Amino acid sequence: MLSESELDRVCVVLVRARNPSNIGAVARAMHDFGFRRLRVVNEFAMPFTAAKSAVDASAVMAGAVTCASVADAVADCTLVVGTTAVGERDLQHELLVLAEGAARMRAELREPTHDDEAVMDRAPEVGGTVAVLFGSEKTGLSNEELSHCNWLLTVPMHEYEGVRHPSMNLGQAVAVCLYELVRDPTHDDKAVVKGAPGDVAEPVAAAQLERITALMNEVMEATEYTRRHAHNCDPAHVRRLVRRIGVDAVDAPVWMGFLKQVLWKLEGRRE
Amino acid sequence: MLSESELDRVCVVLVRARNPSNIGAVARAMHDFGFRRLRVVNEFAMPFTAAKSAVDASAVMAGAVTCASVADAVADCTLVVGTTAVGERDLQHELLVLAEGAARMRAELREPTHDDEAVMDRAPEVGGTVAVLFGSEKTGLSNEELSHCNWLLTVPMHEYEGVRHPSMNLGQAVAVCLYELVRDPTHDDKAVVKGAPGDVAEPVAAAQLERITALMNEVMEATEYTRRHAHNCDPAHVRRLVRRIGVDAVDAPVWMGFLKQVLWKLEGRRE
Repeated sequence: MLSESELDRVCVVLVRARNPSNIGAVARAMHDFGFRRLRVVNEFAMPFTAAKSAVDASAVMAGAVTCASVADAVADCTLVVGTTAVGERDLQHELLVLAEGAARMRAELREPTHDDEAVMDRAPEVGGTVAVLFGSEKTGLSNEELSHCNWLLTVPMHEYEGVRHPSMNLGQAVAVCLYELVRDPTHDDKAVVKGAPGDVAEPVAAAQLERITALMNEVMEATEYTRRHAHNCDPAHVRRLVRRIGVDAVDAPVWMGFLKQVLWKLEGRRE
Repeated sequence: MLSESELDRVCVVLVRARNPSNIGAVARAMHDFGFRRLRVVNEFAMPFTAAKSAVDASAVMAGAVTCASVADAVADCTLVVGTTAVGERDLQHELLVLAEGAARMRAELREPTHDDEAVMDRAPEVGGTVAVLFGSEKTGLSNEELSHCNWLLTVPMHEYEGVRHPSMNLGQAVAVCLYELVRDPTHDDKAVVKGAPGDVAEPVAAAQLERITALMNEVMEATEYTRRHAHNCDPAHVRRLVRRIGVDAVDAPVWMGFLKQVLWKLEGRRE
């Protein structure tokens, strides 16, 4: 079970959802399990009023926010999780099955307590904010969209003649994921994840990781690293590199200061 | 996980489902999780062909059976489970939350093995056959329909001001129940489907981390970061910074190449 505060720190992000009734179905699933924050990333204005399946979920729909980009939608989040049906795509991310991924998300949401030795000497603080991204009904999340994610999760589905069934209905996928997130894990006591980054340290928001990524790109450009190692410099590649290092709120300013200093020095030499 | 034989011994029974597209959504959820036996109890003939949401679930739809009564639909089942949203109704049955109920259903489906002491002296036999009943979208299962059940299960949902949210979308409810039924409760090592590239690759040796640390120190020195942020440049501090980012064997050469490139550029400027 999640506390009210934890429920409030989960954002369901729908990227390029095509069908208003699917958005309504997602809102209903959120309402069923107590989640409130719905964000929709779309190039065109969503006809929210047409989302008629949102029975009893009008509060979720009324609070839904339209975002111009995935980066905007996850800017305040400390953990960004992508969902995928795992097709033939060659994934660059760590991939967890839903049960394991949900345990990690709960760890991120958890508010540090007085029993947490690691935070004894720090001021009490709230837990992290988690975004869960769902792609369009047809194509899922693109590689660029996935590059904003810390890791991916998948709902285990049946394999037919060794081939995994391609994907779930959007509303059903959201319902299953949110069910697992609030599912009482006491039935399987291994649900606690040990040693996940950000478990004890204060997590860092995606917006700050995006600034570090931008600085990395600048330094790579300024040092001609981009020219010599072009295969490492695809923007999505650099974003994943920065996500993987799992910087926390303490280290983030150090990394930013370090990269800025490199740029400053290179600039200075140019003059 | 359920075996193919176990999957074949689960019947999803829809009682008085009103909306053909909901039946299609249920068929799709069944197909996603590997279930095949759909039975529909309706007073009037169901327009199965209109069930358009049944993407990829045509086999389930083609095999769907229309039954005249609940008694007919569950006649060959050894365990009959009703689903309920638990309203004000005074339930006469034992009520389990989904996770517990699913465990009981798995026990019923399980095929006895030679190791099962209880069946040592009996002829080998297959496991039981389980029916899971879902009522109409509006009213759920009637008391008469519930009376066919051995016990009931409910999907735990959020309570708003102490009042439980009335009910889920039919397709979502079926998806969540079937997900829980096939959910692997052991959390074994299959939980990580695919590690991050570095997880599969050799973990990086301390010596390589030490080389990255040395390069960081060099860059900090060369960029005058050391002079401006002396408090961040204690050697042990830098070492911890590098250790904390958890570079793996795949990313390590990228970080080294990047830092070397920064040094190369700074050197070049000096000449």
